[in-house]
Amino acid sequence: MNDQTPNDQTSAPRSGGPADPAAIADLVAANRILADQGVLDGYGHVSIRHPGAADRYFLSRSRSPAVITAEDIMEFDLNSNPVDRQGRLMYIERFIHGEIYKARPDVNAVVHSHSPAVIPFGVSTVKLRPICHMSAFLKNDVPNFEIRDCDGMTDLLIRNAKHGAGLARTLGGSNMALMRGHGNVCVGPDIVTTVYRAIYTEVNARLQAQAIALGGPINFMAPEECDLITGRRDVHYQRPWEMWKSRIAIP
Amino acid sequence: MNDQTPNDQTSAPRSGGPADPAAIADLVAANRILADQGVLDGYGHVSIRHPGAADRYFLSRSRSPAVITAEDIMEFDLNSNPVDRQGRLMYIERFIHGEIYKARPDVNAVVHSHSPAVIPFGVSTVKLRPICHMSAFLKNDVPNFEIRDCDGMTDLLIRNAKHGAGLARTLGGSNMALMRGHGNVCVGPDIVTTVYRAIYTEVNARLQAQAIALGGPINFMAPEECDLITGRRDVHYQRPWEMWKSRIAIP
Amino acid sequence: MNDQTPNDQTSAPRSGGPADPAAIADLVAANRILADQGVLDGYGHVSIRHPGAADRYFLSRSRSPAVITAEDIMEFDLNSNPVDRQGRLMYIERFIHGEIYKARPDVNAVVHSHSPAVIPFGVSTVKLRPICHMSAFLKNDVPNFEIRDCDGMTDLLIRNAKHGAGLARTLGGSNMALMRGHGNVCVGPDIVTTVYRAIYTEVNARLQAQAIALGGPINFMAPEECDLITGRRDVHYQRPWEMWKSRIAIP
Amino acid sequence: MNDQTPNDQTSAPRSGGPADPAAIADLVAANRILADQGVLDGYGHVSIRHPGAADRYFLSRSRSPAVITAEDIMEFDLNSNPVDRQGRLMYIERFIHGEIYKARPDVNAVVHSHSPAVIPFGVSTVKLRPICHMSAFLKNDVPNFEIRDCDGMTDLLIRNAKHGAGLARTLGGSNMALMRGHGNVCVGPDIVTTVYRAIYTEVNARLQAQAIALGGPINFMAPEECDLITGRRDVHYQRPWEMWKSRIAIP
Repeated sequence: MNDQTPNDQTSAPRSGGPADPAAIADLVAANRILADQGVLDGYGHVSIRHPGAADRYFLSRSRSPAVITAEDIMEFDLNSNPVDRQGRLMYIERFIHGEIYKARPDVNAVVHSHSPAVIPFGVSTVKLRPICHMSAFLKNDVPNFEIRDCDGMTDLLIRNAKHGAGLARTLGGSNMALMRGHGNVCVGPDIVTTVYRAIYTEVNARLQAQAIALGGPINFMAPEECDLITGRRDVHYQRPWEMWKSRIAIP
Repeated sequence: MNDQTPNDQTSAPRSGGPADPAAIADLVAANRILADQGVLDGYGHVSIRHPGAADRYFLSRSRSPAVITAEDIMEFDLNSNPVDRQGRLMYIERFIHGEIYKARPDVNAVVHSHSPAVIPFGVSTVKLRPICHMSAFLKNDVPNFEIRDCDGMTDLLIRNAKHGAGLARTLGGSNMALMRGHGNVCVGPDIVTTVYRAIYTEVNARLQAQAIALGGPINFMAPEECDLITGRRDVHYQRPWEMWKSRIAIP
Repeated sequence: MNDQTPNDQTSAPRSGGPADPAAIADLVAANRILADQGVLDGYGHVSIRHPGAADRYFLSRSRSPAVITAEDIMEFDLNSNPVDRQGRLMYIERFIHGEIYKARPDVNAVVHSHSPAVIPFGVSTVKLRPICHMSAFLKNDVPNFEIRDCDGMTDLLIRNAKHGAGLARTLGGSNMALMRGHGNVCVGPDIVTTVYRAIYTEVNARLQAQAIALGGPINFMAPEECDLITGRRDVHYQRPWEMWKSRIAIP
Repeated sequence: MNDQTPNDQTSAPRSGGPADPAAIADLVAANRILADQGVLDGYGHVSIRHPGAADRYFLSRSRSPAVITAEDIMEFDLNSNPVDRQGRLMYIERFIHGEIYKARPDVNAVVHSHSPAVIPFGVSTVKLRPICHMSAFLKNDVPNFEIRDCDGMTDLLIRNAKHGAGLARTLGGSNMALMRGHGNVCVGPDIVTTVYRAIYTEVNARLQAQAIALGGPINFMAPEECDLITGRRDVHYQRPWEMWKSRIAIP
């Protein structure tokens, strides 16, 4: 099935059940937060796995994150087929989400962005590494998805399951993967954690670039420190989430 | 005819017909969007070819883009003579638009800006090149207009048809041309595409500078990838356009 | 006592007396100002010593600085035990404040931030030094707290009195200390001075990085000039404070 | 007379006549515009020569530019004595303005700022030079005031006529002078031109730093081009001025 193939009712996947309004509201907020924080531009997208059905996910129709409302949210199966298309234009790259949900049962939210400070690392030999405790989740091995290895010369978009699966393979068990010449994808166990990771990946990229520009060696986080930070049981993303939400208009 | 010569009614060109209000509204929005996005400062300007008359174009009177309204829009022939001047002050550099419309029948919108991240590339030997898929339209050959080759030592403004034609010759068939020590000009088949190009030229310049600062070689877009991206039939600039418009006040 | 141990009424410290509403209002404003100025992100915190009791301090419950109100402010003893916890979540790192108030009788306000331009200096061998008169308070010796020297491999948080005392020892008599891979802490004799220092530490870091990037030697402030500036009797922080307050919403 | 000496009615200079309300309104707007444009922070100040008395000037009492109103504007003689002090706190550095008005009969407006991108050039051996036509007024010789040459080790403030005259001597006939470790001063024949210069000095500094960071030689403006630009008779600062004013609240 190609990108926007009309959805034949007889082949549309069944719904995983009614959407939890609070979960949808958080998904809408996540889109607007990431736009407000400069992580998402006019492009990029955010999804959550259906809280009640592991083989379904929610993703907006094709609209800029800053203007998305609850009415835009669509349900998809993990092959990225829409449950109830209603003629709406879909993100060409929804396969990023479906294929990662297939490969990663631990992941329940996905952010794909063109987050600006991160893009230079995707086209550089310099490795993106955690420079401060807030981005310890980057660990020591940020993979970089090179689509030429997957499908030769393309327009760089994740247009189908093959591309999406290739990205998921590169992502492996990591929290974030670069996408050369394109952007990045962040994943996590819930939407708040994933939004946090998307924001602090951008922050880390910016700060690492500034540290490089100072000249001299950089004292990166030790792997053991990263593990202790990511192993915390008292991490509290609700603190910034409350503030990020306070800055956006809730539609 | 020099820059602001009083317009003798007997020599004023005839109108190409009534302006399509939707086209004028989009032109006003384009001005305000580009100011909001930091591409246009107090200077710079945006035009569209008259939808109903290929030998006419619309351009505001001399006002900062951020404050332009539909009442400011004037109609010009391709020699940049105003159809109905009404004593209004005109952009000295309107010849950028007229001469490009003459040279490029495929172009229906023009943006001239002092877009900040781009200016350094115009005075450097470092070539501006597409670093991510969103700026693939830059291709591999961004020309740089050197006005000294056209008219020796000047105040750098495109003051007449000779300057404008020189700029158009340098632009050639490209989507964007640098203007050394001045700014740049972006062109496209419609206003939405051209606004997109103006914004993502600025984005690319910023990201390429950041990639250079990381040190090490940069993995630029391959020409074939750029061609596949620019050859897309499903490109969708309305997605960011909707969001960019949502941020501005519609006068 | 570990981080969030329930507060047994029989062991809760006594209050130092009613809070001066004007002092609390300034503390709330300081939080919001520093968020507005980009010094505090979703994290970081600000405290003042109790104006009427040198062995007590005021600090918000665990909330992002941008959204803090007077009702969030809690009172603590210098061991960072809450006077009246009311089940509220406390900042894990409140020990930064308590231990500095113990070690520094001259200090009456403390700001802990992840101020972005400063973090790169904390992981670099390049020394942060005053580059302009506004940041002369940095003097010539900005210490850098390395938590590994204090407690080996950790998650970098100041979780207890041992960590806080280690940070206070590193701070010594300085106005600011870097915290490697984490952020920084600024101190001062009152909240307005401390907010000023937090803001101009960030400014200095940004400007010093830009000066380094220009290439060539930097003409830093002479120690004697720094002493003359910090010894001024007519310094006037109310001028920017009034402007900073005018930008925030007073809850 | 030292900085804030009480003003004895018998020695207060006479007024140069009533203030032109339009001129005062433009002075207030200039303060707020420069704060909005990031040229003025909590500090810095803007003055105009009295339109009706060449030996008087107008300058606000000591307040942050962003919050200044017409009621804050005070009148001074060129020795920087206030005409009618009313117990108001004055800028310590008002001598910047008085002494420049003495030395430069052609100057009718002065801006002193800590404009951030410019400060690094004041502490570097790299010369600030015009990189684009908008900053041609910088010409080829931007002087740098070193206060140690004037008065040895100080707190860097222009506290008296000796300092102010030293700064004016360094400024010479230029449009802008750097002040090492402090900021800069811009001058011009009217407030709109001077605000334009203050803004585009900051822009040029930012762009030149970016051009340097690209690596490779920079193609600066030729002196002849700068002369042709500064010699224009059709320069039009009202265009950006209208837009800058549209962004601020008029008190």
